[in-house]
Amino acid sequence: MWADQSAIGRDAETGGYTRGGWTPSEREATAWFLDQCATRDLTVESDGIGNLIAWWDPRGTDLGHPPSGRGVVTGSHLDSVIDGGAFDGPLGVVSALAAVDQLRRDGFTPSVPIGVGAFVEEEGSRFGMPCLGSRVAAGVLTAEKALALTDRQGVSLARALEAAGTDPAGVGPSPLLERMGTFVELHVEQGRGLTAPVGVASSIWPHGRYRFTFEGEANHAGTTLMEDRHDPMLTYAMTALAANKQARLAGARATFGRLSIEPNGTNAVPSKVIAWLDARAADDATLESLLAAITRQAVERAERDGTTVAVVPESVSPIVDFPVGLRDRLVGVLDGAPVLPTGAGHDAGVFSAAGIPTAMLFVRNPTGISHSPAEYAEEDDCLAGVEALAAVLKDLAQ
Amino acid sequence: MWADQSAIGRDAETGGYTRGGWTPSEREATAWFLDQCATRDLTVESDGIGNLIAWWDPRGTDLGHPPSGRGVVTGSHLDSVIDGGAFDGPLGVVSALAAVDQLRRDGFTPSVPIGVGAFVEEEGSRFGMPCLGSRVAAGVLTAEKALALTDRQGVSLARALEAAGTDPAGVGPSPLLERMGTFVELHVEQGRGLTAPVGVASSIWPHGRYRFTFEGEANHAGTTLMEDRHDPMLTYAMTALAANKQARLAGARATFGRLSIEPNGTNAVPSKVIAWLDARAADDATLESLLAAITRQAVERAERDGTTVAVVPESVSPIVDFPVGLRDRLVGVLDGAPVLPTGAGHDAGVFSAAGIPTAMLFVRNPTGISHSPAEYAEEDDCLAGVEALAAVLKDLAQ
Repeated sequence: MWADQSAIGRDAETGGYTRGGWTPSEREATAWFLDQCATRDLTVESDGIGNLIAWWDPRGTDLGHPPSGRGVVTGSHLDSVIDGGAFDGPLGVVSALAAVDQLRRDGFTPSVPIGVGAFVEEEGSRFGMPCLGSRVAAGVLTAEKALALTDRQGVSLARALEAAGTDPAGVGPSPLLERMGTFVELHVEQGRGLTAPVGVASSIWPHGRYRFTFEGEANHAGTTLMEDRHDPMLTYAMTALAANKQARLAGARATFGRLSIEPNGTNAVPSKVIAWLDARAADDATLESLLAAITRQAVERAERDGTTVAVVPESVSPIVDFPVGLRDRLVGVLDGAPVLPTGAGHDAGVFSAAGIPTAMLFVRNPTGISHSPAEYAEEDDCLAGVEALAAVLKDLAQ
Repeated sequence: MWADQSAIGRDAETGGYTRGGWTPSEREATAWFLDQCATRDLTVESDGIGNLIAWWDPRGTDLGHPPSGRGVVTGSHLDSVIDGGAFDGPLGVVSALAAVDQLRRDGFTPSVPIGVGAFVEEEGSRFGMPCLGSRVAAGVLTAEKALALTDRQGVSLARALEAAGTDPAGVGPSPLLERMGTFVELHVEQGRGLTAPVGVASSIWPHGRYRFTFEGEANHAGTTLMEDRHDPMLTYAMTALAANKQARLAGARATFGRLSIEPNGTNAVPSKVIAWLDARAADDATLESLLAAITRQAVERAERDGTTVAVVPESVSPIVDFPVGLRDRLVGVLDGAPVLPTGAGHDAGVFSAAGIPTAMLFVRNPTGISHSPAEYAEEDDCLAGVEALAAVLKDLAQ
């Protein structure tokens, strides 16, 4: 499974993946998933935006009208960031299928359905909204707002869905969630915080994406005196350095990884620099004060440069504390696996905030590198992850 | 003429122009020019890359086989930077046609042909090479190198020419230059250096475009400790601030106005930032020491960030001192017009370096803004420019 799936959409030059939602490579990965489910006789259900749950239901529950919250669902996502790694997302889907295979080999018969989920556009790399599929499913992002999101080519989600043969009218809160009694997401760890092969999540750090728009005055790069300029690039550059410094001081994270520049010509002082800040911290108050410190330094520099800066939050997710009871149950099943927080957002965080009892398992990342072609996990650790997930599912669905 | 021409390709939102070489708006402007030439019974000659000279030759010189270097040529370019102003380029073309009209109205009969030129891709906004048409015409850029240049979509010049119906095999040193006995380019001034309506150029500052490639390690923006990062954005940001400071200290110009970022995702530490430095100074030595100072600071910061930086010159033009005799002749014709250098490159600089006696006239820019939709010149000053150009052409072609 791993070899088949990880060949889809790999860039021959970088070794990375660019599987934005509803792009050809992501659709190919989804087709691969559906094929795997068919091979296993799993019953696939889809919601309006295209989230999928493939059910293993050996007791023959009527899945069309199941008792609310009866199933145990695991899984993750198949999309990726731009030029991302092989593990972030697909490891959780492949491990879920492998865990079902193992439980079947072991002769286990679950008393409630076990579902394997694949949720769309978790990274938000195409439409700029992380956990797009789960947010819409949980009703925390309205269909109206979701469908109006546009990608970098100006294509709206509504148009992208139509192009994929999906009717946008079906987008909205998902009936799939009513069947999720418990959700467990297995994911590759994304820092160097886990030294055992497998760990259990305590919380997801609060996370904000903020759009900084720096505006100045376009001008000729050769003839305009330095003293006469209102160059928003300089205001941005100081802000990027300030973000790095403030994050270090706060023990937090701040990253400017995406820019849009106008006119973006070599011989023109730019008129506008739009920069997206990704900021995360261990708690909500630290995140707020981090943003305030960065914004203050940006505004001060803008006054010196004769430019302006406007800050708009695009998405802010408060801290997610996974339920302690479920977490401790997993730690027990796994003989005292380590517990750790993560700085990364996940569909599990959205489902947890929506009131579904949710837990996460992490597989060790030896280098801590993620969202990069160099993202990596040892095969033995991945197999330990499948073992752990199978044990957890068996415990929850017995 | 001004109203007709300045309506072509104007962005309704910004009021600016984006006329890259061989784009529809630039082609439309060129078609407008050819139409104006036809209306005036001027004989248009083109070279292999598409530079145009429209001849007014009332004495009936056989233009097919003229004596070498007999004509007096004026004109400029019709392309623009990205979202540029209305005057940079087109003012010189429109003024040239208007000056011919005025000389005809005055009953003047030139003793040598007067040519109105329009030279392609002067700004280099599409293929990254300023003065592309004149450099190829003068033989300082080989056809092989020129045809291999690509735009941001990866389209080569060779393919762009084919798409425009031009055979790339014809690109090379231009026979048009053999007919240019003298070249005079009228241009809007691009700083605040000219307080009279019209001035005469002394020199063009040396000008370099350098590609800075900053490389680090792509990583997850949420989970990677600040201390574990190798973020090329930080190295770039420090370099941009250093360039500004060093240019101020040197009384020079340094601008980072164009960037390309990989992967350019909000939640990824970038792996690569490519930044183009535009640097200019009053003399070659100052430009060299400016580049050295900026590069030194970039390298020092890269060592701190655990990143790398590589600097490649894309084009470096040494100082152009226009011939003093011709310049003083123009100053005499114009009753002591002021003489000033410019920080902007021009086709006139390329032709001058190629040994053609060349001069420039500047029309006052009240704000100093250029390469921007806000670029502006007063109508009275533009009319004074036409008067001055007509007087100069009359003097040179009598």
